[in-house]
Amino acid sequence: MNYGFSTTTSLPYEAAVEKVTEELKKEGFGVLTTIDVRDTLRKKLDVEFPRYVILGACNPPFAHKALQAEEEVGLLLPCNVIVYDRKGTTVVSVFDPMVMTAVLDNPAMRPIAEEVRARLERVVASMRT
Amino acid sequence: MNYGFSTTTSLPYEAAVEKVTEELKKEGFGVLTTIDVRDTLRKKLDVEFPRYVILGACNPPFAHKALQAEEEVGLLLPCNVIVYDRKGTTVVSVFDPMVMTAVLDNPAMRPIAEEVRARLERVVASMRT
Repeated sequence: MNYGFSTTTSLPYEAAVEKVTEELKKEGFGVLTTIDVRDTLRKKLDVEFPRYVILGACNPPFAHKALQAEEEVGLLLPCNVIVYDRKGTTVVSVFDPMVMTAVLDNPAMRPIAEEVRARLERVVASMRT
Repeated sequence: MNYGFSTTTSLPYEAAVEKVTEELKKEGFGVLTTIDVRDTLRKKLDVEFPRYVILGACNPPFAHKALQAEEEVGLLLPCNVIVYDRKGTTVVSVFDPMVMTAVLDNPAMRPIAEEVRARLERVVASMRT
């Protein structure tokens, strides 16, 4: 995968969602949105899917800087963090904000993306058990 | 901009948010998440920002196909639609799902992204006034 970084954790799914939310908070990210993929697919399509959540994480000072540097960057915000169950193993993955710099072609975004990436890497490292 | 497509509209901001939500619905997209950027920045940072909303749009059958083709694609979902006020003009922009195919390196994603893109282009076209 070249658009995120990922780890497995020995924590069960629910505990992993709780812990990653706490770890994000330590790095200044609030969870602004939560999409329960399994519930959504069950409700809309009546299909079964493993447990899978998409958390929309936002660090307000960095989001503000990014929006000032690039008006349309909201198309790439918030930073997604996913937690899901892969055959009994819990996986935690985080969107790599450096993808933004590749897509955006705006040099002002690079230092912002680098700092956000460093924080998100610490979050993923803290989940590795 | 090479990561989305965009139009201005003569509609005021609130009416544009309402209309784009309806137009998305016609193409099979529900709005799963809403981030009011101005409110968030005001609340978290006590700064002023123009009206700006990030709508997380999801077409469940296509999301399901994408997730089956690429487990981690949740890092790039939902498809963001932004509506914002640029000095009195309302702008509507949509994330270009073809960016996913560039980032993902998974040929199974191409036909899915192409179909989603065609639908989102119709949404943007319907907003152009």
